[in-house]
Amino acid sequence: MKYEENYQMPFFLATQKGTASLATLVNMLLLGSEHQLDAVDAGIAALGKEGAGWVITQYHLDVTRMPKMEEQVVLGTEAVSYNKLMTYRDYWLRTPAGDELARMSGAWVMMDLATRKIIPIKPNFAEKVGAVADSHVRRFPRIGKLSAVDAAADYRVRYFDIDGNGHVNNVHYFEWMEDVLGGAWLANHELATMDIKYAREVAAGTTPSSQVQIAGLTTHHRIVTGDTLNAEATLTWRQH
Amino acid sequence: MKYEENYQMPFFLATQKGTASLATLVNMLLLGSEHQLDAVDAGIAALGKEGAGWVITQYHLDVTRMPKMEEQVVLGTEAVSYNKLMTYRDYWLRTPAGDELARMSGAWVMMDLATRKIIPIKPNFAEKVGAVADSHVRRFPRIGKLSAVDAAADYRVRYFDIDGNGHVNNVHYFEWMEDVLGGAWLANHELATMDIKYAREVAAGTTPSSQVQIAGLTTHHRIVTGDTLNAEATLTWRQH
Repeated sequence: MKYEENYQMPFFLATQKGTASLATLVNMLLLGSEHQLDAVDAGIAALGKEGAGWVITQYHLDVTRMPKMEEQVVLGTEAVSYNKLMTYRDYWLRTPAGDELARMSGAWVMMDLATRKIIPIKPNFAEKVGAVADSHVRRFPRIGKLSAVDAAADYRVRYFDIDGNGHVNNVHYFEWMEDVLGGAWLANHELATMDIKYAREVAAGTTPSSQVQIAGLTTHHRIVTGDTLNAEATLTWRQH
Repeated sequence: MKYEENYQMPFFLATQKGTASLATLVNMLLLGSEHQLDAVDAGIAALGKEGAGWVITQYHLDVTRMPKMEEQVVLGTEAVSYNKLMTYRDYWLRTPAGDELARMSGAWVMMDLATRKIIPIKPNFAEKVGAVADSHVRRFPRIGKLSAVDAAADYRVRYFDIDGNGHVNNVHYFEWMEDVLGGAWLANHELATMDIKYAREVAAGTTPSSQVQIAGLTTHHRIVTGDTLNAEATLTWRQH
């Protein structure tokens, strides 16, 4: 069951380059799926009534071109399949004329909100959006480990980083990952792909570190809080 | 010349309380005026061709209720009048049924982009949006000075704070002003009014400090970088 809607990226979400950041791109893609889920009563509110929540485990993203400030685009999404523990969802962003700007794949699990433990997927919630039962496990690209840290910065968690679940909204990690690369890198490179694997949530009141190793046009990232790994990611870039 | 448009506040702009932050509210109000200006070719791009830019000097804001996550609202704006050096613009945000949620007034000047100096308002740009010539100078409420600092925090300027002009987008100051109040204060208070006066832009590569003095339900704020005052503001609040 494919879902699409029109969206115009407001000027205030554009970076100094006049385009979307990685965080804004992911937020826009998620907006489409939120609307699809809410339309069939399978979103955060509906699932919360059964004491469960959706939790992202990993994303793979391909970017052809970042959307521009005030550009009219189409957000698309489809919940493709589910197995015992995972549902797989695709997301895309295209021009009204049909040129694809970005495509993302996400692997979601369900969590019991009381025990904070992963639980089997509730088939009725997957089926409400047309996902089909399929035992196939999607393979995501391997995420490289850092063998050295070329740059790092601390990001004290701020009030507006925290979402309704009381921890840092994991889209903010992308801001920390891009910020640590610095303005000179970002001025000369455009994002091509992103893979991220989430390990553990970032709590309010903490100061995670964003660390990066730069290997040519590939950057290896991790977000850590003390000895705790919060997320690992690999980004690839195109040079201007 | 009044301008209105429909807008739905995306979930990803909501705070942990499920409503707009002060920064998001101001961004939404400005979105309406950007669209009005662009529609009559008097926006950033058109003015930039004449080597000039719009610069905000102060805002006054009244909030009845913050818009909620995914709420459908109407953004409204009107460029009311201009004199030799200022144009005054009103902004409002209302429900589709007509209940006003917020109203803001702004005093704008024009800057020569080469010399960075204030220049007289170009009448053709004011008149394009229906502002009338009127020598009357609007009085904005006085902004109280801090006599002591009850809380302060440093905010290293990040890549995504910088806008297309190469300095910090001044809407980010609102995030620093609210963040320094802390989660406990923000959980128990709702913004009622805001006055801000901008003094000097915040540059890339700096670490401004957000300082606040709390006097009952009034908070006095300033953003400073070393000995330089960037902005002063007074906020008033309602307790839950």
